[in-house]
Amino acid sequence: MASESGKLWGGRFVGAVDPIMEKFNSSIAYDRHLWEVDVQGSKAYSRGLEKAGLLTKAEMDQILRGLDKVAEEWAQGTFKLNPNDEDIHTANERRLKELIGETAGKLHTGRSRNDQVVTDLRLWMRQNCSKLSALLWELIRTMVDRAEAERDVLFPGYTHLQRAQPIRWSHWILSHAVALTRDSERLLEVQKRVNVLPLGSGAIAGNPLGVDRELLRAELNFGAITLNSMDATSERDFVAEFLFWASLCMTHLSRMAEDLILYGTKEFSFVQLSDAYSTGSSLMPQKKNPDSLELIRSKAGRVFGRCAGLLMTLKGLPSTYNKDLQEDKEAVFEVSDTMSAVLQVATGVISTLQIHRDNMARALSPDMLATDLAYYLVRKGMPFRQAHEASGKAVFMAETKGVALNQLSLKDLQTISPLFSGDVSRVWDYGHSVEQYAALGGTARSSVDWQIGQFLEATCVPWLVARSFFSEASNTTSSSPSLTLPSASFVTSSN
Amino acid sequence: MASESGKLWGGRFVGAVDPIMEKFNSSIAYDRHLWEVDVQGSKAYSRGLEKAGLLTKAEMDQILRGLDKVAEEWAQGTFKLNPNDEDIHTANERRLKELIGETAGKLHTGRSRNDQVVTDLRLWMRQNCSKLSALLWELIRTMVDRAEAERDVLFPGYTHLQRAQPIRWSHWILSHAVALTRDSERLLEVQKRVNVLPLGSGAIAGNPLGVDRELLRAELNFGAITLNSMDATSERDFVAEFLFWASLCMTHLSRMAEDLILYGTKEFSFVQLSDAYSTGSSLMPQKKNPDSLELIRSKAGRVFGRCAGLLMTLKGLPSTYNKDLQEDKEAVFEVSDTMSAVLQVATGVISTLQIHRDNMARALSPDMLATDLAYYLVRKGMPFRQAHEASGKAVFMAETKGVALNQLSLKDLQTISPLFSGDVSRVWDYGHSVEQYAALGGTARSSVDWQIGQFLEATCVPWLVARSFFSEASNTTSSSPSLTLPSASFVTSSN
Amino acid sequence: MASESGKLWGGRFVGAVDPIMEKFNSSIAYDRHLWEVDVQGSKAYSRGLEKAGLLTKAEMDQILRGLDKVAEEWAQGTFKLNPNDEDIHTANERRLKELIGETAGKLHTGRSRNDQVVTDLRLWMRQNCSKLSALLWELIRTMVDRAEAERDVLFPGYTHLQRAQPIRWSHWILSHAVALTRDSERLLEVQKRVNVLPLGSGAIAGNPLGVDRELLRAELNFGAITLNSMDATSERDFVAEFLFWASLCMTHLSRMAEDLILYGTKEFSFVQLSDAYSTGSSLMPQKKNPDSLELIRSKAGRVFGRCAGLLMTLKGLPSTYNKDLQEDKEAVFEVSDTMSAVLQVATGVISTLQIHRDNMARALSPDMLATDLAYYLVRKGMPFRQAHEASGKAVFMAETKGVALNQLSLKDLQTISPLFSGDVSRVWDYGHSVEQYAALGGTARSSVDWQIGQFLEATCVPWLVARSFFSEASNTTSSSPSLTLPSASFVTSSN
Amino acid sequence: MASESGKLWGGRFVGAVDPIMEKFNSSIAYDRHLWEVDVQGSKAYSRGLEKAGLLTKAEMDQILRGLDKVAEEWAQGTFKLNPNDEDIHTANERRLKELIGETAGKLHTGRSRNDQVVTDLRLWMRQNCSKLSALLWELIRTMVDRAEAERDVLFPGYTHLQRAQPIRWSHWILSHAVALTRDSERLLEVQKRVNVLPLGSGAIAGNPLGVDRELLRAELNFGAITLNSMDATSERDFVAEFLFWASLCMTHLSRMAEDLILYGTKEFSFVQLSDAYSTGSSLMPQKKNPDSLELIRSKAGRVFGRCAGLLMTLKGLPSTYNKDLQEDKEAVFEVSDTMSAVLQVATGVISTLQIHRDNMARALSPDMLATDLAYYLVRKGMPFRQAHEASGKAVFMAETKGVALNQLSLKDLQTISPLFSGDVSRVWDYGHSVEQYAALGGTARSSVDWQIGQFLEATCVPWLVARSFFSEASNTTSSSPSLTLPSASFVTSSN
Repeated sequence: MASESGKLWGGRFVGAVDPIMEKFNSSIAYDRHLWEVDVQGSKAYSRGLEKAGLLTKAEMDQILRGLDKVAEEWAQGTFKLNPNDEDIHTANERRLKELIGETAGKLHTGRSRNDQVVTDLRLWMRQNCSKLSALLWELIRTMVDRAEAERDVLFPGYTHLQRAQPIRWSHWILSHAVALTRDSERLLEVQKRVNVLPLGSGAIAGNPLGVDRELLRAELNFGAITLNSMDATSERDFVAEFLFWASLCMTHLSRMAEDLILYGTKEFSFVQLSDAYSTGSSLMPQKKNPDSLELIRSKAGRVFGRCAGLLMTLKGLPSTYNKDLQEDKEAVFEVSDTMSAVLQVATGVISTLQIHRDNMARALSPDMLATDLAYYLVRKGMPFRQAHEASGKAVFMAETKGVALNQLSLKDLQTISPLFSGDVSRVWDYGHSVEQYAALGGTARSSVDWQIGQFLEATCVPWLVARSFFSEASNTTSSSPSLTLPSASFVTSSN
Repeated sequence: MASESGKLWGGRFVGAVDPIMEKFNSSIAYDRHLWEVDVQGSKAYSRGLEKAGLLTKAEMDQILRGLDKVAEEWAQGTFKLNPNDEDIHTANERRLKELIGETAGKLHTGRSRNDQVVTDLRLWMRQNCSKLSALLWELIRTMVDRAEAERDVLFPGYTHLQRAQPIRWSHWILSHAVALTRDSERLLEVQKRVNVLPLGSGAIAGNPLGVDRELLRAELNFGAITLNSMDATSERDFVAEFLFWASLCMTHLSRMAEDLILYGTKEFSFVQLSDAYSTGSSLMPQKKNPDSLELIRSKAGRVFGRCAGLLMTLKGLPSTYNKDLQEDKEAVFEVSDTMSAVLQVATGVISTLQIHRDNMARALSPDMLATDLAYYLVRKGMPFRQAHEASGKAVFMAETKGVALNQLSLKDLQTISPLFSGDVSRVWDYGHSVEQYAALGGTARSSVDWQIGQFLEATCVPWLVARSFFSEASNTTSSSPSLTLPSASFVTSSN
Repeated sequence: MASESGKLWGGRFVGAVDPIMEKFNSSIAYDRHLWEVDVQGSKAYSRGLEKAGLLTKAEMDQILRGLDKVAEEWAQGTFKLNPNDEDIHTANERRLKELIGETAGKLHTGRSRNDQVVTDLRLWMRQNCSKLSALLWELIRTMVDRAEAERDVLFPGYTHLQRAQPIRWSHWILSHAVALTRDSERLLEVQKRVNVLPLGSGAIAGNPLGVDRELLRAELNFGAITLNSMDATSERDFVAEFLFWASLCMTHLSRMAEDLILYGTKEFSFVQLSDAYSTGSSLMPQKKNPDSLELIRSKAGRVFGRCAGLLMTLKGLPSTYNKDLQEDKEAVFEVSDTMSAVLQVATGVISTLQIHRDNMARALSPDMLATDLAYYLVRKGMPFRQAHEASGKAVFMAETKGVALNQLSLKDLQTISPLFSGDVSRVWDYGHSVEQYAALGGTARSSVDWQIGQFLEATCVPWLVARSFFSEASNTTSSSPSLTLPSASFVTSSN
Repeated sequence: MASESGKLWGGRFVGAVDPIMEKFNSSIAYDRHLWEVDVQGSKAYSRGLEKAGLLTKAEMDQILRGLDKVAEEWAQGTFKLNPNDEDIHTANERRLKELIGETAGKLHTGRSRNDQVVTDLRLWMRQNCSKLSALLWELIRTMVDRAEAERDVLFPGYTHLQRAQPIRWSHWILSHAVALTRDSERLLEVQKRVNVLPLGSGAIAGNPLGVDRELLRAELNFGAITLNSMDATSERDFVAEFLFWASLCMTHLSRMAEDLILYGTKEFSFVQLSDAYSTGSSLMPQKKNPDSLELIRSKAGRVFGRCAGLLMTLKGLPSTYNKDLQEDKEAVFEVSDTMSAVLQVATGVISTLQIHRDNMARALSPDMLATDLAYYLVRKGMPFRQAHEASGKAVFMAETKGVALNQLSLKDLQTISPLFSGDVSRVWDYGHSVEQYAALGGTARSSVDWQIGQFLEATCVPWLVARSFFSEASNTTSSSPSLTLPSASFVTSSN
């Protein structure tokens, strides 16, 4: 019934080929990023085929040399795409055939694009996780260095954006750095699950030609192999996890950015961004805007959007490979790029930020010591609930009299409680105040030192782990799939 | 305290300029899409400046000619970007100055990038909404044409994916087409809110130089002007609405795609995709996969991800312009491209799909008439609840006897209810069944005809509306880029 | 093969009934909210059955009286649920049968829970939209009243949270109120699509018994009837739209809340929340926290989560009714409750907020007039780009000299440009500054008055529309499905 | 300026107290779930106060006894809430004071609701993670048991929902079970980060009274203590992670549900749900709908919505505690309940599902062996790409001749390639086909056995870990509420 053009019904002309469909279906525009890992995977697979007797040693060598040439062309920017190269796998195999002839047709034996593409993506992401891990720790280290150097600066701590208690500036820095260490820990966990070999799963049923998957694993330095071929070719947990990792990390950075934007307003005037991370206004000559921080804050939305998008794409999908899964790669590439930029810009912002110590000091006010006033009474034996109420009365009295809380006379205070005596004057010292908070995790100098110590211990471990992933090129025989997580150092402290 | 490089603390080297920050901040990579509307907006603005006495007629003419030259360079692909062109506005004004000298410096008088960028985006989106509207109606029309032609094909209707009742194939097609008309209606509403002029709002406080915003509105053919300059420069409702519009439309298309994927399985075998919209397997020679439909289904996730991302970016943002808003454009461009491709591919799929009438007919089974059996009893006076129960007993009896429901003898049926008589045999006719559902919206022929009639009436209206948006360009000299208006054959066919 | 318990394999014991499944499946815990509209829908349907000859007049009257009794029991809190009442429809029909006997079994003739439940939900939402519309306008009116009364208060306008230009406090209020009018407009559009009758669509194929859907529409005062029975029973666009409407509205309120939280910090000290909308600290006696605003800000997340959840549930769902759709109701109920509370609390916050005019005035600084300084030069003939640069130089000179911008001597200024003369002193007047921004939408008094005028005109229309929905009980014969949208008044201004 | 009512401007009446604000602010309606852990936390804290010298031994004992009494009242349902009990912490302390008098006022010394609430939530979630872990493994075990028992059943494997290759039914089951083991692994990781003590962080600055946080950690059996008081009171990573964990797990279950819904259609007829997990139709007597599976599928949306909502709430939040964080608990409680129900219903569905082996066998068709036909040629030395093409020709030839692929004569095949010989007949055996896929992870019997073996090994580990979390309650006197530990039969069955 169809006409020659294949068009049965109204609608635009459709011939044997619909160019919009071709473009819609094609992934080469973005999966070309995988050129290197695709070659890497194919080289390992050709070794597997040789061991299985499906390639002779000579054929394998021919393929390996051909693949090296393909890689060389990509590296040198001389690789030429054909219009029919719908994806990187097709392109590389097409070029291999041009280079070495019919032997190239043996490379795909027992392999499917279903296991090939997910192997490539895992290889790429494994490396990328290491890169992001390194950038993340560079940011953390910058923050810890800064916290160490500016340990004696006090400024107001806020809850609900209302002035709460005096704290150390370093305590604020470390509060954000601690959040990032959890991101580091999570990234290693994600990487652990990225680092699993799917190759040898075929399209759905597995590999029927006796390919030794353990050999493939060792060749590609994966930590483990996938258990089930149907799951292996169609699960994208590691992608979803990575996107969520990035989303949560961005949430942290968005909160730090928000703080710094506030602290950099005229009204707070605690910090000043380096010109390198600010921009001017096309209209208002006096403006200097914290664009870097606003962009960081905004990317939290974009990154999470990718996570939400992938989850929705996965929802309710039938088993095994469906083309829907092609959505995974652009999300990974975009989010990886964003994270890389955000982490580096954040490092730049933190390392060049100027602080205004005087403004910070000036912003401390006696009412922020009301809690300490209550503790004064507690130390004299008053139950906290009564002490809290008494201190509240003092705050109210000061407001009514129009004086600062520390300007109330002893006599005034004694009308509230007879427990007040001359030593109450010691309460009105911000330095004294912060030193009280000496329990682990508090803002006292000793506790801040302890926190910094925890970081210095912790930083060694992730570097080692990250480095081991970088060295993935070395085809070691190590088969250990279990990573030592860096949180160990934190746990120690609780013993 | 800062070193020359501006670097205070650990972290990578940072000089006066951080190239990663430059790239992070720059938007030219994507906002260059706005070149034409940016020129359009600037031309209108220079007319406003002239009327306000801030440009002489000669200066205005000089600027207008210069801007036309800029546009020409973009159109011909000869426009050269400088490294310092961080956005399209900077690029165009920089080039204008090169072309016409210092007078170019008067163009931005009283304008800010804050009102300029949002004007550009609204102009771009207004045009884009019209394009998408046209593509959407092309899909709808294709579906309605098909529904009209295949009105007599019956097949099983499913609820919960269990066979429910016989329906017309056209009824299924129209059920999806009806959903798309709501998308069309919503798109017009979005476009109405897109079509509001923000130019003349400055950075935040408005325009202080007596620029006549009504003139700007008329020049750019906007439907209204924004009421408040702070809101005008920082609200992105129209972007969020557009992204949600696309998300909901994609939800509809994902459901249609899901149906067609199922109907195209070997097990259902109701439909067969054209080769132009299927792809093969790199491993399995017999495979023909519905990649087009799977991609459509998957894009529902991607598009919604963009909507989620923008909403999250907007959440809790302080008033007026913040750099966070720069996230709006990439979302709009990507989603527009996706929708354009999806709508065209869907049209192609529907217009080339083959249906297997025999398989559809074979899939109808007597148990799908159990509801009609109950209605038979209702028509004889039995309350529906009892009739439903009686019909259920018949179903059970047939199952127990291992026969089809219509194979029960009259005697069998009469053991269930004495109301059964010889005329029950008329129930077992699928054609008779569907004809009963003659209330408006039902699957009877008359009702399907009525539905089609509703479409034909409806299609006139949106075209007219859409066209009115297109004609907006008419009082500028700009020619609307590459939009194929609905073909004449379409318009005539609806008469 | 199954054992008596139905359990074939490991896992917890499962008998004929799994209580967890029963609870999982049951919706009565929340759909009981629909009791009133369910009765309303059934009453209309019984009239339809009577007209179609499926009920006698006497039977219909019996059913109508029975249904009134059911409603009465709900209203009086005496309705008793049975354990088997899995949903409100079952419960009401079960009770009707207890009250009037077998005739009750005729009520469901030709109806399915599929069309019944969506009719109920639409009736409920129609009313709810009117309620929310009224609350939204109460908030808008409060804001406009306040803007009108405090029109002469100036304070700093911020972009990027950096001080930008002096603006009227009312201009800020109105910027948020204008955003809310778009929410109002959208809500009416949603309501228009809510207000469509699905009853008479049956389970999938339509109604086979000649029920007059136009009669049903008129009885229930719907604006239109659904076109296609398959779509009618399974589309939830109106739910998704409502959830997105709420999400976008919450985004606006989250931004207003963010502003007010900032303006209420010690550092800004522009506003003070009423005690009724603040809370104290369990630890810190001096604290007064803006909990109301923080809760409003946070609900933007919750509400959007519901929207995201429903969209994901809908993605890729096969045609027609699937139980997945049961997710719609809890989302609607929760979001409706949240919006109702948020709108009322926001109204309370705005109507009781105190502003600190002195602090607002003190926060204006001469550098915020740098743009005006540039305009001064523009008015003297200098191209804006040069004037912007010259003003920038003045800002830099003042910073270098450590004086305020307006403290530069005329001689100082003339070293920058000879165009400066004695009249430059008029620039340094904040009141004079804002009055320049007199273009429509700007912060000049005349423009703010104009904005307020636009609101006063606009507020009439939505009230009328909203009221017409409230009067829905009246079974008017009006069949007009087309609403006049309130944005008309805004468009007027552009003529 | 305010009137007595506090109302300055239009809007509804507002007195000193706004009842809607009260309700909006109150959390007792849901945080009452925390009653037990709140008592647990307070008991530990009173021990900390005693060690720090802030309580005498006698006071501590009085408080401990009082708290036990409070817990008893909750457990027995006799605890009476006051209208002023805005949250569980207030309620419990209020009641404690009624029971033991002023000493109760000492309990909150140095503690804030900020560290109290997050300690409570972590305790609750730690326990809940263990419960969900147990339910998850019950489901996995049920699936593995079933896979083991039905290992010899073959049926079609699908990719893109097109028949791909014959696989074992067990291979399909295990593909879903493997996905769930990743959920188990992730849940343990989440639980590890849940299991960290924040108590002793105060409101923001830490604890100033020398409370020994290591003692608190040990009392409450946490694995570690938080490092920084500002982070400790305001980070909700563990909540976000939990919600994402649930979202990803639900994605898996939605995919399994989708498969089973398809396999249970009339067209596939591979499986049949137990009546306990199906429901009928109110209209169509013959219907039996897979409501249980549809609900599981739909909950993926709801659960993810909660995750999206929380992330959006967190985005851009200023440092430390803001009331926005109150959104965490309802999300956790709802998602926990949903996961608990879903996992149990899924276990019930899997354990009672019937499979139709005959239909499964009948659905295997010779074209599904086209890949094996290519491998036949590969084994004879033909490069795979040529073999793939040759097999494709055979498929086309069979289609053209209108015969099944295995009905082509040897002569026919030899026209395609001379490598075909008599032994090609061995290809047409489905049992032989699956046995080829013997590489690890494939569908051969040996590989499926290997997979099952991996599960049996794996199941021991999580149980041990999970149990260690349960035993945490052991050094307090509290008895863990209503958790059924994995039944002995389970543990033995895995030996």
